[in-house]
Amino acid sequence: MKRTALGAAGATSAPLISLEKQLLQPGVKGLPITAPLPQGAIGSQQWNVLRADTSFPVAVLKISALQHNLRWMRAFCERHGAQLAPHGKTTMSPQLFSAQLANGAWGITLASVAQVQTAFRYGVRRVLLANQLVAPADIKAVIALMRQDPGFEFFALADSSAGVARLSQATRLMGLERPLPLLVELGLAGQRAGCRTMDEALAVAREVAAAPGLELAGIEGYEGLMVSQDRERDHQGVRDFVAGLSDLLRKADAEQLFTRGSILLSAGGSAYFDFVASGFAQVRGLSRPVLPVLRSGCYLTNDHGFYHDLIEQLNQRVGIAPEQGLKPALEIWSIVLSRPEPTLAILSMGKRDASYDIDLPRALAWHRPGGANADAGAMPDGCRIEKMNDQHAYLRLPADAAITAELAVGDLVGCGISHPCTTFDKWPLLLAVDDDYGVRHAVNTFF
Amino acid sequence: MKRTALGAAGATSAPLISLEKQLLQPGVKGLPITAPLPQGAIGSQQWNVLRADTSFPVAVLKISALQHNLRWMRAFCERHGAQLAPHGKTTMSPQLFSAQLANGAWGITLASVAQVQTAFRYGVRRVLLANQLVAPADIKAVIALMRQDPGFEFFALADSSAGVARLSQATRLMGLERPLPLLVELGLAGQRAGCRTMDEALAVAREVAAAPGLELAGIEGYEGLMVSQDRERDHQGVRDFVAGLSDLLRKADAEQLFTRGSILLSAGGSAYFDFVASGFAQVRGLSRPVLPVLRSGCYLTNDHGFYHDLIEQLNQRVGIAPEQGLKPALEIWSIVLSRPEPTLAILSMGKRDASYDIDLPRALAWHRPGGANADAGAMPDGCRIEKMNDQHAYLRLPADAAITAELAVGDLVGCGISHPCTTFDKWPLLLAVDDDYGVRHAVNTFF
Repeated sequence: MKRTALGAAGATSAPLISLEKQLLQPGVKGLPITAPLPQGAIGSQQWNVLRADTSFPVAVLKISALQHNLRWMRAFCERHGAQLAPHGKTTMSPQLFSAQLANGAWGITLASVAQVQTAFRYGVRRVLLANQLVAPADIKAVIALMRQDPGFEFFALADSSAGVARLSQATRLMGLERPLPLLVELGLAGQRAGCRTMDEALAVAREVAAAPGLELAGIEGYEGLMVSQDRERDHQGVRDFVAGLSDLLRKADAEQLFTRGSILLSAGGSAYFDFVASGFAQVRGLSRPVLPVLRSGCYLTNDHGFYHDLIEQLNQRVGIAPEQGLKPALEIWSIVLSRPEPTLAILSMGKRDASYDIDLPRALAWHRPGGANADAGAMPDGCRIEKMNDQHAYLRLPADAAITAELAVGDLVGCGISHPCTTFDKWPLLLAVDDDYGVRHAVNTFF
Repeated sequence: MKRTALGAAGATSAPLISLEKQLLQPGVKGLPITAPLPQGAIGSQQWNVLRADTSFPVAVLKISALQHNLRWMRAFCERHGAQLAPHGKTTMSPQLFSAQLANGAWGITLASVAQVQTAFRYGVRRVLLANQLVAPADIKAVIALMRQDPGFEFFALADSSAGVARLSQATRLMGLERPLPLLVELGLAGQRAGCRTMDEALAVAREVAAAPGLELAGIEGYEGLMVSQDRERDHQGVRDFVAGLSDLLRKADAEQLFTRGSILLSAGGSAYFDFVASGFAQVRGLSRPVLPVLRSGCYLTNDHGFYHDLIEQLNQRVGIAPEQGLKPALEIWSIVLSRPEPTLAILSMGKRDASYDIDLPRALAWHRPGGANADAGAMPDGCRIEKMNDQHAYLRLPADAAITAELAVGDLVGCGISHPCTTFDKWPLLLAVDDDYGVRHAVNTFF
């Protein structure tokens, strides 16, 4: 089984096997097929991206980097006594969820009920919905899943009386057999959802604890939006926020609002999970065990831009050499379609294929299929993607570089991306490759 | 048949029927289902978006606006003696392709071979690939389709000797039975692909005409990127460019490079197709008939931002009252998840759901399901989406507006978008609604 390369113990589950058995149709981006092909047969085709066997653009996941990152995060969490519920919205990939769970993840975090339904369908049975649960159809869908499998553990957030009242009424109307566990969300002034003050949050916690059909399972917050030019202030802000979450938890516990076997305490995007883990490790002496849950989604692939830089900073904070830290695993390869001007190459990828919301893709490597070199060459300094249209990228080359004379129509260009979430959602299928860019298997996404 | 609402004569084709028969799984964005549902049964569920029957966010297409736009563009083309090969990359929707073809479209334009394979699978048999055809797997895939159906008409672009040589060699190696028709692409300095001078373009045209396995089918260009602050200069630039395309065509014809029954002359994004149509209408007196082909993709849905403004300008140029012009047909509805601060509402949609590459979505309307009003109310001036994360939008409300006190968790907000292409690609399924937001059927996309 090739998927066991990612340590996915659940890879033999029926839903994942059904993905291997499905017939992929011509027209799936990246696949060089002219007739339907069972997904499980991809590994035996012996395609190699650098030989231009695939179609372009193609999204590749480097298996060795994924394996490294899975092990790295497991060790990090074990070292800090924290659980991991990686944010599944990043990849929305059943095979990657399976690999994360097989590598010690406690559950999967998700952002919408549609995502919860998809994860459930592929075997995920512990979900933290890092959002308020509001729409009637969504409430009904969650309750249906809780009924379908009494072992399905589901947690959602609450940050208002109005939300608590809606949910309580809905669970009563639908006659849910077991209480719906909620975490009170503490927010930050000027930021996203979440109660803005400790008093507001405590009030919502009391309402949840008192509401029929609901139970208070813990406290939650999201610190990941605190990224500004003033890094010292960001860091202090994160530490203060983590302390605030712990403080809220202590106050709610002092009022005996928690009644489950343990109390969830969750935060942690992909930028500051070190601060979160060490802050949460200090929470002790409560009425029942506290389960600290980190939620990084982007650790799995890292990137070559925004998260790369944040992870480098994290490495420095915790004393990890860069080469031992999380590795970028996701690349988009495209082909040179046109060399219309001496310093311009037009590539076969665009806004439909690579993130552009934080930074444009970064040109990493180039390769001439069938040329003298088996390996791709590093893209020289000064080569950069300066613009993307829907289906094209503009690669600007330095006037005096050797590559500027050399790069030709039909050459391949490999790009790193900035922000995995907005690249994964552009690919229904990504190809997992070995270190030589040989295609070993595929992973699906559901957006 | 509900799909005939869009005038899709081909709606009864086997591939489209297969979409109606497919079982949609819980987890498809927007669908309020807890068990698999055949797609064709959506219309009989009597869902209404304003009653909050669906999940949120949900992407809706207004049937009446689509119908209007289909008829409008057909009449426009007939009036100008032009053919339409709408850019299918905008929607990548088989049902919408079918509606466009049933409303007089000559063919479908596409941007990649993966898109061509998908369109072919759903019955499209005349394709203009508005791109160079370079990757070996892509060349092979196109040749496979040309063999699979000898009636499949396929055209691609050429802008370099290198590209022509690659294609000629590939068609020879693969023993293609009929020549591959190419259009020479004329470009613009500093813009995307395409020959930069008339001499270069003529040289490529001669190479195509002389290359074994290829034939010169016409001349092509893309004027749509000329959008700057200086509208007069843009307009003059477009007219000059259209004149340049016509000039290139005349010169190539004078050299007897065209050998097919007619000569294709194609340009026309969604901003300036009036200039293109009137410019092309002046091309007369060649050795064989000229087929002017426009390629607008965004006319079908228009939008509430970038294209809305460009279409308003077009309306003024051609003397059409705004209410008789193309209508916006695409909206994203989301639900208020949180009201964390007096002037802030957090909505259940984000970068995964609505375009953000040109402008953020525009809040158009709001509605309280089960409230006193059956219709949605217009969003007052000053309410605006000020930011989006991956899965959330930040709706800022004016401090002194009535809605700011009124808007509550669970209320619905309808948004228009700017740039249909980057919204369609976020939705595998969109719901087609009547003027009361009753859900009548669904259309699929394949990205």
